[in-house]
Amino acid sequence: MLQTFMYAPGDVRVEEAPVPHVNKPTDAVIRVVRACVCGSDLWPFRGIEKPYENGPVTMGHEYIGEIVELGTSVTGLKKGDFVVGSFATSDGTCPICQAGYPSDCVHRDFVGAAQAQYLRVSNAEGTLVRVGDGSTPDEDLFPSLLAASDVFGTGYYGAWAADVTPHTDTAVVVGDGAVGLEAVLSAKMLGAKHVIAMSRHEDRAAIAREFGADQIVAERGEEGIARIKQLTDGLGAQSVVEAVGTQQSMTQAIGSTRRGGSVGFVGVSHDQSIDGEMLFFSAVHVHGGPAPVRRWLPEFVDKIMHREINPGRVFTEELPLEKAAQAYRDMDERREIKVMLNPWA
Amino acid sequence: MLQTFMYAPGDVRVEEAPVPHVNKPTDAVIRVVRACVCGSDLWPFRGIEKPYENGPVTMGHEYIGEIVELGTSVTGLKKGDFVVGSFATSDGTCPICQAGYPSDCVHRDFVGAAQAQYLRVSNAEGTLVRVGDGSTPDEDLFPSLLAASDVFGTGYYGAWAADVTPHTDTAVVVGDGAVGLEAVLSAKMLGAKHVIAMSRHEDRAAIAREFGADQIVAERGEEGIARIKQLTDGLGAQSVVEAVGTQQSMTQAIGSTRRGGSVGFVGVSHDQSIDGEMLFFSAVHVHGGPAPVRRWLPEFVDKIMHREINPGRVFTEELPLEKAAQAYRDMDERREIKVMLNPWA
Repeated sequence: MLQTFMYAPGDVRVEEAPVPHVNKPTDAVIRVVRACVCGSDLWPFRGIEKPYENGPVTMGHEYIGEIVELGTSVTGLKKGDFVVGSFATSDGTCPICQAGYPSDCVHRDFVGAAQAQYLRVSNAEGTLVRVGDGSTPDEDLFPSLLAASDVFGTGYYGAWAADVTPHTDTAVVVGDGAVGLEAVLSAKMLGAKHVIAMSRHEDRAAIAREFGADQIVAERGEEGIARIKQLTDGLGAQSVVEAVGTQQSMTQAIGSTRRGGSVGFVGVSHDQSIDGEMLFFSAVHVHGGPAPVRRWLPEFVDKIMHREINPGRVFTEELPLEKAAQAYRDMDERREIKVMLNPWA
Repeated sequence: MLQTFMYAPGDVRVEEAPVPHVNKPTDAVIRVVRACVCGSDLWPFRGIEKPYENGPVTMGHEYIGEIVELGTSVTGLKKGDFVVGSFATSDGTCPICQAGYPSDCVHRDFVGAAQAQYLRVSNAEGTLVRVGDGSTPDEDLFPSLLAASDVFGTGYYGAWAADVTPHTDTAVVVGDGAVGLEAVLSAKMLGAKHVIAMSRHEDRAAIAREFGADQIVAERGEEGIARIKQLTDGLGAQSVVEAVGTQQSMTQAIGSTRRGGSVGFVGVSHDQSIDGEMLFFSAVHVHGGPAPVRRWLPEFVDKIMHREINPGRVFTEELPLEKAAQAYRDMDERREIKVMLNPWA
């Protein structure tokens, strides 16, 4: 089968690899119908993380597909089911899963080989969600179902962790990458009265508006904070999503939050260091980490199947899997927001 | 009148100073019945903060007393009322107060001259709480009423910010200073089934036990984290209070918290820097800052007047105000946990 590997910064190759099979009775193997490239895949592509230091590594953690092989202990799913799963696998039964944090399951594995024709998924029973009755959904729903696997789930978690509710007057999203855009959509879903997207790219701002952003703020850093305060009676916003993962974006997020408000942080952290005194006197809540996507996945799938939301809008390009390297370059060079891969095209 | 000043590290003096009067129609002046020394007063005493760089500064932010002068716009209180107030003044009406964060009121002042015979309090209407019917309560209740002004309120906020509820199996308190001990009492009040105090001083551990601690853990740092995990099925505690304010204590607190759990941080931060990646993958909630004491002050006063709680137990010594310097030394050298000052002895 075809599988995507990263060899070095900027060096992505699609090569022949053995088809995976069930190893443990709790595994499933799926025929990947669509996969995609994540913003977090760009960190190693840019050499900021180096997982390939000991050899090439498989890539990809977002997927929809059809179950082709099932471990003997998996009873809630059947071969042929069309499914979507989280980027982190979870048993669904441990205390951490039960508390609502499946992406921190004590038996968690991070999916890491989804940019391929087939994928083995551990903890299948707790991880995979059957789509509708299990038959293949309309193809125009593929992008949104795929988005639910991570990028939308992560944006949603950002808004949820920032405590967005119908009582939220103003929610701000720092970061106009795909996760940030999904956070805009999510903040609206969760009931924020007024959503401000911080963006300086017109193509991204346009999607933010489609997703319900009431206002776009182009300023960054101290100027961005000042602008948000100006728009919120000098107080800052009740809820702010940090969807980048840099020192600057975190500082901007905390600074834009009113005292007692909440920062949801879902940008995978890189070289961030949060000053304790600044955090203390900001009096904000900070919550984030790997999004517990599986918690909400059935609800997401339901809304997508009923065409109530269209989170797949962040995919601006679709390529055959064999052109994965181009997908990385297109995202790295910001020609595309997010690229979907078809392993069978 | 007598007023406490700090001149330099280790140099505390009680000197004659003018009696304060009402400046603004929202002020009150109280005759201070008891004040005390706060753990945070030891930071400048030790030279870690240097507020006295431009001359001696008045000290003290915890107080109970009797109103002797009232601004014309204060209608909810009257001269002669026995009152307790927060270390931060608040108008009680701004959006931040209304959201439950009075210590971040947009009109906040930090009280800073309470180790004295008289004290001017701004935002009196929103800040001061009448004790009972306003007459002087039994003297044995003074310590607990005084504790409500800050140290108990701050410990309570730590437990509340760590999301302690009757659903909490295990709450951990890092720090066995007066705030940490009050956090133990508070975690029990808020319903935690099992409270672990991290302490290596027998006098403090004894009070922690009196306050309801089920277990004492003496280990610190990585060993302390390992011990907490051992006591919590390898997961860490749902709720952890950080009541010290150092890098080590914050790392210990986050490390002792289970994924998805909550850290309440109320140690005033000094040279803390929180690693973003560690925080991200810990998946915890972090919330803290200056405790919104006023939010719960009526409830605290009620419980104290009904002798349901005894947070004043953390005072291990009472001295006349004129011996304030000794009070600082006794706390700095850990001979006493917390020292109450009587301005009229």
